[in-house]
Amino acid sequence: MQFHRDGFRTGDPTLHAPTGRPANTDGLPEEVDVLIVGCGPAGLTLAAQLSAFSDISTRIVEQKDGPLELGQADGIACRTMEMFNAFGFAEKVLKEACWINETVFWKPDEENRQHIVRHGRVQDTEDDLSEFPHTVLNQARIHDFYLEVMRNSPTRLEPNYARRVLDVEIDPTRADATLLEADEYPVAVTLERTDKVHAGEVETVRARYVVGCDGARSAVRKSLGRLLEGDSANQAWGVMDVLAVTDFPDIRMKTAIHSAHEGNILVIPREGGYLVRLYIELDKLKEDERVASRNITAAQLVAAAQRILHPYTLDVKEIAWWSVYEIGQRLCDKFDDVPTSKMGSRFPHVFIAGDACHTHSPKAGQGMNVSMRDTFNLGWKLAAVLRGQAAPTLLHTYTAERQTVAKELIDFDRKFAKMFSAPPKGSSVDQGGSVDPKEFQQYFIQQGRFTAGTAIQYYPSLICAEPTHQALAKGFEIGTRFHSAPVVRLADAKPMHLGHVIEADGRWRLLAFAGAETPTAHDSSLSQLCEFLAKSPGSPIRRYTPTGADIDTVFDLRAVCQQGFRDLSLDNFPSFLWPRKGRYGLRDYEKVFCADLKGGQDIFDIRGIDREQGCLVVVRPDQHVAQVLPLEAHDELAAFFANFMLDQSTR
Amino acid sequence: MQFHRDGFRTGDPTLHAPTGRPANTDGLPEEVDVLIVGCGPAGLTLAAQLSAFSDISTRIVEQKDGPLELGQADGIACRTMEMFNAFGFAEKVLKEACWINETVFWKPDEENRQHIVRHGRVQDTEDDLSEFPHTVLNQARIHDFYLEVMRNSPTRLEPNYARRVLDVEIDPTRADATLLEADEYPVAVTLERTDKVHAGEVETVRARYVVGCDGARSAVRKSLGRLLEGDSANQAWGVMDVLAVTDFPDIRMKTAIHSAHEGNILVIPREGGYLVRLYIELDKLKEDERVASRNITAAQLVAAAQRILHPYTLDVKEIAWWSVYEIGQRLCDKFDDVPTSKMGSRFPHVFIAGDACHTHSPKAGQGMNVSMRDTFNLGWKLAAVLRGQAAPTLLHTYTAERQTVAKELIDFDRKFAKMFSAPPKGSSVDQGGSVDPKEFQQYFIQQGRFTAGTAIQYYPSLICAEPTHQALAKGFEIGTRFHSAPVVRLADAKPMHLGHVIEADGRWRLLAFAGAETPTAHDSSLSQLCEFLAKSPGSPIRRYTPTGADIDTVFDLRAVCQQGFRDLSLDNFPSFLWPRKGRYGLRDYEKVFCADLKGGQDIFDIRGIDREQGCLVVVRPDQHVAQVLPLEAHDELAAFFANFMLDQSTR
Repeated sequence: MQFHRDGFRTGDPTLHAPTGRPANTDGLPEEVDVLIVGCGPAGLTLAAQLSAFSDISTRIVEQKDGPLELGQADGIACRTMEMFNAFGFAEKVLKEACWINETVFWKPDEENRQHIVRHGRVQDTEDDLSEFPHTVLNQARIHDFYLEVMRNSPTRLEPNYARRVLDVEIDPTRADATLLEADEYPVAVTLERTDKVHAGEVETVRARYVVGCDGARSAVRKSLGRLLEGDSANQAWGVMDVLAVTDFPDIRMKTAIHSAHEGNILVIPREGGYLVRLYIELDKLKEDERVASRNITAAQLVAAAQRILHPYTLDVKEIAWWSVYEIGQRLCDKFDDVPTSKMGSRFPHVFIAGDACHTHSPKAGQGMNVSMRDTFNLGWKLAAVLRGQAAPTLLHTYTAERQTVAKELIDFDRKFAKMFSAPPKGSSVDQGGSVDPKEFQQYFIQQGRFTAGTAIQYYPSLICAEPTHQALAKGFEIGTRFHSAPVVRLADAKPMHLGHVIEADGRWRLLAFAGAETPTAHDSSLSQLCEFLAKSPGSPIRRYTPTGADIDTVFDLRAVCQQGFRDLSLDNFPSFLWPRKGRYGLRDYEKVFCADLKGGQDIFDIRGIDREQGCLVVVRPDQHVAQVLPLEAHDELAAFFANFMLDQSTR
Repeated sequence: MQFHRDGFRTGDPTLHAPTGRPANTDGLPEEVDVLIVGCGPAGLTLAAQLSAFSDISTRIVEQKDGPLELGQADGIACRTMEMFNAFGFAEKVLKEACWINETVFWKPDEENRQHIVRHGRVQDTEDDLSEFPHTVLNQARIHDFYLEVMRNSPTRLEPNYARRVLDVEIDPTRADATLLEADEYPVAVTLERTDKVHAGEVETVRARYVVGCDGARSAVRKSLGRLLEGDSANQAWGVMDVLAVTDFPDIRMKTAIHSAHEGNILVIPREGGYLVRLYIELDKLKEDERVASRNITAAQLVAAAQRILHPYTLDVKEIAWWSVYEIGQRLCDKFDDVPTSKMGSRFPHVFIAGDACHTHSPKAGQGMNVSMRDTFNLGWKLAAVLRGQAAPTLLHTYTAERQTVAKELIDFDRKFAKMFSAPPKGSSVDQGGSVDPKEFQQYFIQQGRFTAGTAIQYYPSLICAEPTHQALAKGFEIGTRFHSAPVVRLADAKPMHLGHVIEADGRWRLLAFAGAETPTAHDSSLSQLCEFLAKSPGSPIRRYTPTGADIDTVFDLRAVCQQGFRDLSLDNFPSFLWPRKGRYGLRDYEKVFCADLKGGQDIFDIRGIDREQGCLVVVRPDQHVAQVLPLEAHDELAAFFANFMLDQSTR
């Protein structure tokens, strides 16, 4: 956490100095760079991301009257915790959330099939999958943390509540245009205010970009004429958050219970030590029957849970929230306004994210996570284009990357939900589709990385290289998120996670892992890379960093050495690795790291980095690995960025 | 972190439901249980501690007009981090503070004594001294964190600023009395308001207890007629917090620099990555000369630093704060109002803490830490007496324990400061008192535990047993703070630190470490202990827990087993170890732990617990170990508490 760079300032360092353009007025402005529709997890992730840039005007509107108090989503995958860390609030979630450490499996007791018995258990998340655990916390608290980031940002962004989108229109004269002029705001959004004081008032906002994070019934999606398509499994489930007294011993574990004849339960322990969520299987629906027509009551859910848990008892004292739903997986074919046929000639201006373009069954704990990662993917791209760093063609990669991920997840989710709903082998209701609980457990384990969100891999594109040099760093697979590992910072010997230098600030990271040479030698590949980046006209840092800006404004170069921190001294490195920054030209001492030899977790070993040659790992602002290169591949590095970045000297 | 026990509640769980008695009115009440004078670290620690108890009325007054913006103290010892964890904000300090990981030593270069050269380095804190690092953060931020705890407490406690204490008077008719009646407030404090609106207004508050945390010039201390006594070393030092450009490579390490002829510097890197504190040795003062008479300027300090750092350069861009001071260690002989001769017949009603009763040189980083731990020692004792849990004789232990600690620290500090100020051997200014830098480094290492605050040990007393059974748990030394170690919580397999169950809530912890028997067996020592505590008339839990209160209101029993968590099931333990609590009688699932066998840090091994017999470790509300007993020593356990606790059935 760096502060005081431009002068000593008292108070909370996460409260940024405000810019001249406050974003928290009651009325909406006529023109805005980005209008976000919907204050759910997707919308808030994007708003928090964009609020950091004082040169981008952003507004976020929400149909509800105020912040969410009680949300329905709760699962937070490891990968999402990593993203929260980039936003600066992972430690709050770690403290307040329930940690899911084990998953336990119960099945009918072979000796008395009216009883359930524990038959298996697995560590919920495999070792070294992530430095963060899988956690569970009410969605409303995640919203609170994002709102705090926004409120403390330079733009002091606050949502504008009680706004219903009436219409979204894209200027037809701009529909086939490419680059925007500085004064062009091609999307017009008409909104109706719904609070008592302003009820019926209509506002029109012209935006450069509009992002619909407005849920499964998205008005923005409808305005694009896109559909959420998919099927329903005709399987009804109930869900309830309860405070209950039980003698069931695994009530604080994530537990999958398959009873012989009474159906299935998924137990999700919740934050605070007492609350628990139960997903309870209801009867199979008839074709075309809707769950709403069943008039299912909370008492019926409780009774079903009691039957499944037999011989254990469940005495429900308070139901904090409950619902019934059908399992359904639906997906939109494209997440922006540009028809596939026009992708060569048009750039997107309207996007949809989260439930607006994909819905899942809740039990794999994916919905909220995938939604937030949609807009984490989109946010930096919008910022880069709006700030003149990248060409708008970058925006095509949002739908290309996230629609593919959503499809993969929905395929996974469909299989997972089906297996979960199936009766256990030997059940009296077995009609041929039964699943061996052992098989379910096996599938669960295999899919652990998928559920944790760490298996997501983007395919080669403008911003994701072919894995030509992947062998130089086998553990930093191109397209996957940067898999953090422990290091020690040279200047102050602080043990830390290398991945935690990647904050949600829109910057690219160039992580240079030194090879077998003495890294400080003048002719080492590391020194030569610094020389190239500092001085060559082809250097991406020189080409794409605005004149007068700090050297790490767009690209943040860090070096990692194989030596222990006591074997190196910062003053022997090129000054490019302890650069001078800010108003005073103070040195930044946080650019060079060493392997954590004492901790027994040498990053070169555990991430399979070529010790002889070293390598350069290029990490995107959304923490995904974009490229792995030899340290000497200066031209390839330059070529990669030349594909989509805009030369600042010509601007 | 537990919440939702008495019903589901949305929002921030650290924001407690308010009690009917708000403590944040502008005017002071006529009567109050505890009046704290001074909003420094000592006063705020006490206020935060007492604010948790809605049945105690507390006020804290401060002479300044508002919260501190820029403090002078910055060092936070490991032990203090443990205490912050009990108050629930250690993670905030971990995130924002600078971590001190290494200490580096520089001395004159033997080949060119005009130059300095690195000659040694040590890990700042030895392995497993604490689960927390040594950190550095501006005192004002620590204040902020305490103020937030107070603001979120059930009593919503806020300081009353702009109050100057005019007089403190103890009712002479009560001076020799023992127990207070419910309506007795024997201490009268007269205060003058100093803000513009109320300037000159005088308030009188009658309090049951008054605690003077009002610094070295304490008005409360003066009212007791006590003196801060000690000597000055006639050694002047300058200190400055600077933003500077330097090529000195260890500017982000804690660094002790002894130059040949120009004096010494202690470098303390500060939070935020850029700021650094320099302690700079000035000339020796003449006898009776005061540093104020020297007219030392900031420019002189900078010039001295530049000379000492030669051949490295130092270009100071901004001085955030600077001061000059004389080293001096002073101490009060007693920290309360009761003369030694009257200790048998009177109980204290006025206390002093922090700088009001002991001052140190700043360089060992002790002042703020010792002050906060003074009132952490006092807070639970005041609460126990005010809440009718303990006899007021308990209050005598405050001065007995903390005056002794202060004396030990001052002795240490005197030696440390002297060694630091001495010229290095071979110096041109060597007049016989020189110190070999190697010797200084050796002393530094030896005293690491002392500086970290973990070496503090209270002597046997009413609340600290003789070490009769110490052999059962060699690593939990009676009188020292409970030395945490990793465990896994049985109910949810969460890896965590056992010591983190000890929150600043005034409760005693009974930590039962199971022996070689099967812990769940009906006749195991653990089961028998539960049986005794649950049912015996002699059980401290039965005797001292108010009727109708939760079973863990006064004593919090936890069990730790040697088995892995997969080898035990909570339903096989006595229900006393998953007790029912609160409005609904919900079970508390957080009482049983297992050794962390996977992590390789088995608490039984690393803390030397007798695996055959197990043991019971009794931990005080201030985290210090009070007693180690065999699990079967029910009578000894009962006798320990009978010494000072009050039977609730007779109240």
